[in-house]
Amino acid sequence: MDRITVGIIGFGTVGTGVAKILLQGEKELENRAGLPVKLKYIADLDTTTDRGIKLPEGMLIPDANKLIEDPDVNTVVEVIGGENPAQTFIKKALSLGKNVVTSNKEVIAKHFVEFTELAKANNCTILYEAAVGGGIPVLHAVRNSLAANRIEKVFGIVNGTTNYILSKMTSSGADFAATLKEAQKLGYAEADPKNDVEGFDVAYKLAILASLAFRCHVDYKEIYREGITKITAKDIADARKFGYTIKMAAIGINHGDSVELRVHPVMVENSHPLSSVNDVFNAIYIRGNSLGDSMLYGRGAGELPTASAVAGDIMNLAFRAKEGFQKDTDFNLKEIKILPREKCVTSFFISCLVNDESGVLAALASILSQKGVSIRSMQQVSAENNCAAITCITHPVEEGKMDNAIAEIKELPNVREISSIIRVGLGQ
Amino acid sequence: MDRITVGIIGFGTVGTGVAKILLQGEKELENRAGLPVKLKYIADLDTTTDRGIKLPEGMLIPDANKLIEDPDVNTVVEVIGGENPAQTFIKKALSLGKNVVTSNKEVIAKHFVEFTELAKANNCTILYEAAVGGGIPVLHAVRNSLAANRIEKVFGIVNGTTNYILSKMTSSGADFAATLKEAQKLGYAEADPKNDVEGFDVAYKLAILASLAFRCHVDYKEIYREGITKITAKDIADARKFGYTIKMAAIGINHGDSVELRVHPVMVENSHPLSSVNDVFNAIYIRGNSLGDSMLYGRGAGELPTASAVAGDIMNLAFRAKEGFQKDTDFNLKEIKILPREKCVTSFFISCLVNDESGVLAALASILSQKGVSIRSMQQVSAENNCAAITCITHPVEEGKMDNAIAEIKELPNVREISSIIRVGLGQ
Repeated sequence: MDRITVGIIGFGTVGTGVAKILLQGEKELENRAGLPVKLKYIADLDTTTDRGIKLPEGMLIPDANKLIEDPDVNTVVEVIGGENPAQTFIKKALSLGKNVVTSNKEVIAKHFVEFTELAKANNCTILYEAAVGGGIPVLHAVRNSLAANRIEKVFGIVNGTTNYILSKMTSSGADFAATLKEAQKLGYAEADPKNDVEGFDVAYKLAILASLAFRCHVDYKEIYREGITKITAKDIADARKFGYTIKMAAIGINHGDSVELRVHPVMVENSHPLSSVNDVFNAIYIRGNSLGDSMLYGRGAGELPTASAVAGDIMNLAFRAKEGFQKDTDFNLKEIKILPREKCVTSFFISCLVNDESGVLAALASILSQKGVSIRSMQQVSAENNCAAITCITHPVEEGKMDNAIAEIKELPNVREISSIIRVGLGQ
Repeated sequence: MDRITVGIIGFGTVGTGVAKILLQGEKELENRAGLPVKLKYIADLDTTTDRGIKLPEGMLIPDANKLIEDPDVNTVVEVIGGENPAQTFIKKALSLGKNVVTSNKEVIAKHFVEFTELAKANNCTILYEAAVGGGIPVLHAVRNSLAANRIEKVFGIVNGTTNYILSKMTSSGADFAATLKEAQKLGYAEADPKNDVEGFDVAYKLAILASLAFRCHVDYKEIYREGITKITAKDIADARKFGYTIKMAAIGINHGDSVELRVHPVMVENSHPLSSVNDVFNAIYIRGNSLGDSMLYGRGAGELPTASAVAGDIMNLAFRAKEGFQKDTDFNLKEIKILPREKCVTSFFISCLVNDESGVLAALASILSQKGVSIRSMQQVSAENNCAAITCITHPVEEGKMDNAIAEIKELPNVREISSIIRVGLGQ
């Protein structure tokens, strides 16, 4: 391969960023790669909207298939997002032996094995650095730089929308619904925010990250997932009282014979660096058996940061083409079982509304103790209408034991409601 | 190449770590790499000291040349450190077409061009991830993941010894000499600490990092370098009063037609994440034109973290061998001029001891103003013996202008001494 000829499918935010980098930096990229890196086509159904970039005549076409089938194009960049038609385009490109670069976490999380096998069979490769952590080169680090480590744990903040919403709720004291609306107005959340606020996006990313880090095949559907929609202004205020900040976390732990994978809000101690990763920034911790903890921090989304990772993958294809690269290093991804949620160990924050009568706190404490849940801290504050609020933080405990305790606490006659159950800390 | 056969030169801390990873993880590494990764020899003049690891009979030999010349050995790992004889061993290995992996910043900073050309001529490669940031994969990120970015700035903390000493001085209030002694006792500083405390180690690392990040050839000797030996307990207390922490920094800025490279202590604002990177941890910021700021954080030294990076390079050679890799991607490193220190722009902290008489502060302020130095904050505190201490922080200014101001301030009859001049902030 003596040149990289690129076709981009999708002329949205990321596509525009990639086009800018390739067109404006063409000469510099060729110098660096040692061979020409040329953009030939961008395919998008919408060929009329002004994206603030001037394209050469004939570059923007409505038909993605024309781009994939063009014999000149040896590198197909898919940045439309979503499962379909991205899946169809990627499969077609790989079947024709073309290298694929994508920023699409959903399609990679869902079709990882299929794509990898197709690439192997057709002597080409698929790269997807931008799918996790936006511009932060975390997949490259996990696949290449830390290749001599047994990675024991990955955890962090990988979704800009939920981190923006939780950061704003923390700084303003506003509730979830109002903050989501504001985020939507500013373009930080989609009109249909489910993918972000319900944790699907984080689960896709954790599936990809854990697959590469733990060298096993992870099905995203098996990842325990809980969104941030139930987090209230009171939860955030309670967290602050105990010295914590609420963050949306992805947690992956390699237990050797099983992996623990969870996506949910957590209370992070204010002394932990993750507690001060705010707004659209992402930060990912990796724990290797030799390296210890290391952390990568940067912009997890946005036109240019994401495009920077896509263009980085294109450059890596160029480096490898020049080195006489044939096909991708195949991973020997083993099958591994996912630890059932009930067996995962974590601390909990619980907040309940109870009748303001004597003995309620004692009854609650007694149930927790009977079910094997050890209490680290418990507080009771009187409220209006003969009500009291009890908040409690536990020591680490198997989730199954906590389920049993909660079921029984709900039956207590003096407990009006369990307002919140939020996990505390970032896993063992 | 159907297998990687490794010979390690140097059986010290890092060599022991690499041997542990290769011997204990042999099967796992082979699985991952898709070809055998075997340790054949370790060469060290001292073949008797117990390093806490059991080697197979005949693996430890006294003669490095035997290892380099062995036709089986295709990968030579140099972890003895220092310029010589490391240079000789590396040149010999490359001349014989063997891949080299090293953790040795000094030899790389001094012989980068020579080694790269030798590798190119002999169809082999030299990798040195462990030379900067220990276990943190910063060179890999700069060379590969961020290849589509124009890197505008790199800065951070890259020396564990000075960071340990400054962290301890900050937490204990002790002076430099006492803290250095303690660090030496604990093994965090060498018996001859010059290489670390005078900033040579940081300058080597900055030369390597800047060469790769800015794609230019940097001679470490041209880097402005100032050590931490003059930092006093009073400086640290003064910094705290103004809201700063003192750190040993490496700063590289790409101005396009020149590069700015500096190694010296700086006062870092307490709100900046670098201010809380303590002890032997390293953290490196990279600013790319597309990516914006990203940060990598982790253990910058120690047996296993450094060995992790060395073994990571070995694994990358294995991946590339399997992909049919022939030789390294050659860099087109351009020659570039280093911006003279006098032209670099930074803020300053100045502390002087003056006679406690009226008009001294005014005279000082007047000289600064005449020389084009704008004052951000100035304080005067009376001390013993008719003395007053004046501390001052300036707005950013060209260092040449500050030199002129300082020369004139020294001549003021009421100024007894200029106790400290410390740069503030991490560059523009």
